[in-house]
Amino acid sequence: MAFTTKATIASFGGKLLKLTHDASTTGCEMALNLYIPPSASSAHKVPVLFYLAGLTCTGDNGAEKGFFQYGASQKGMAVVYPDTSPRGLKIAGEDDSWDFGTGAGFYINATKAPYASNYKMESYITSELPQALFSAFPELDASRVSISGHSMGGHGALTLFLKNPGMYKSVSAFAPITNPTKCPWGEKAFTGYFGDEDKEGWKKHDATELVKGWKGERLDILIDVGTGDNFYKQGQLLPENFEKAVQDSGKQGLVLRYQDGYDHSYFFISSFATDHINHAAKYLFA
Amino acid sequence: MAFTTKATIASFGGKLLKLTHDASTTGCEMALNLYIPPSASSAHKVPVLFYLAGLTCTGDNGAEKGFFQYGASQKGMAVVYPDTSPRGLKIAGEDDSWDFGTGAGFYINATKAPYASNYKMESYITSELPQALFSAFPELDASRVSISGHSMGGHGALTLFLKNPGMYKSVSAFAPITNPTKCPWGEKAFTGYFGDEDKEGWKKHDATELVKGWKGERLDILIDVGTGDNFYKQGQLLPENFEKAVQDSGKQGLVLRYQDGYDHSYFFISSFATDHINHAAKYLFA
Repeated sequence: MAFTTKATIASFGGKLLKLTHDASTTGCEMALNLYIPPSASSAHKVPVLFYLAGLTCTGDNGAEKGFFQYGASQKGMAVVYPDTSPRGLKIAGEDDSWDFGTGAGFYINATKAPYASNYKMESYITSELPQALFSAFPELDASRVSISGHSMGGHGALTLFLKNPGMYKSVSAFAPITNPTKCPWGEKAFTGYFGDEDKEGWKKHDATELVKGWKGERLDILIDVGTGDNFYKQGQLLPENFEKAVQDSGKQGLVLRYQDGYDHSYFFISSFATDHINHAAKYLFA
Repeated sequence: MAFTTKATIASFGGKLLKLTHDASTTGCEMALNLYIPPSASSAHKVPVLFYLAGLTCTGDNGAEKGFFQYGASQKGMAVVYPDTSPRGLKIAGEDDSWDFGTGAGFYINATKAPYASNYKMESYITSELPQALFSAFPELDASRVSISGHSMGGHGALTLFLKNPGMYKSVSAFAPITNPTKCPWGEKAFTGYFGDEDKEGWKKHDATELVKGWKGERLDILIDVGTGDNFYKQGQLLPENFEKAVQDSGKQGLVLRYQDGYDHSYFFISSFATDHINHAAKYLFA
């Protein structure tokens, strides 16, 4: 599906495109931002980092406040900032909560009515959006893609990486929800999108459960969590559970860093954005 | 006057303080952000860069989207992000325009009623605020201060630097209003704050006029302007006038860079923020 370019904005020597397109997976117009570094051309394709944002966010938060363009420009990497849910569908209840429905798609394919027909963010992020981008922008290299994300988007990055071996060269996350079947945000979202009849089935969308079945030997995942993050303190993120699952299953390579005093905001993300760009670059330029 | 610390936020290894204080110059509570780099202590005082924001902004825009903290952390420099006007005074008409009144104090001391009693941003920025900061934060070095700003804040930075020889070690600006007596924004503001009876008097607040009287030989000013900036195209910034005044008066050292395709937004500012930090550092650490 073709994109409409709403704006082209110069940023760190490259350009940030504000795009919209009609997405069939979500049945609505989807907005996103795409950063193309100065080195990109159809003759010199660049790898791509998907950055998935958290609850209440759009594709604008990371592009405006994340400081990813600085490192992406230097490394020669494109960054895709998708939206966090379908919008404007007028589904009853969709706008009642800040942590469910609009702005809270959780990067899964809902199976329960009334969300099952449009809340297909997993298919959108892993299939429709990349296909559309690689078709429309010949300067993007479809064979070199990594993924990262924040909070709900960290859950998205980890689960989509673990569900789709080979699809992403690397994964990293800022303050991710790592064990959604065990935290209030995840329980609310999975109940709403999947129903609570088959809670065992929820595990297919939980990074801590998924990592147990990961076939590879190494899991070179970079995760940063702020020790001053109230959502971490409230047990929404549960990185300890993820770390234990990795260790129990004998996997190597998880780098889980607790950053002293950092909160859940983009002040935290921007402070470590370059580390995550460098992490992705290690695999995208290997 | 003592500050209230509303929040302490970790950022690039240092801390961003969200402060408020009751200011006597403006007669109201003023909010600001203060970034203190990790190297700062009362035994190791750090220099200070004031960043003045543009029309409609608060102290949050630069702190969230400017990416000054990245370079300031590395260099060991504090950054002060003041607000752009008094707020909440309930002066009739104060909130009617986005380019006059609230959010548009223009860093001058108004002389015309009803603004004369509170719109004293010049005194606030050059006197009350720094005195309060240096009294409350012993890690800030009162003897090493520089100034920068964006758009209306670039006008503020240039005029306050030129009006107060020796007060600031350096000045730089992003897309500054450099000749306010000749542009619609400036004419509107100066009419409202000074009245239009003495237009000759306006020149004391116009960087292009002030620079003609600058006594020093060198004027090492860094200015960036985006060629895609609509306000530049509309004649609100007039950097050519400033450059001509500098040249005509035989001053050396102005670095005026036209950045290809950049707009007026924080995407522009963030792309060159580190250059401006480095410019200030050259003088603050001389």
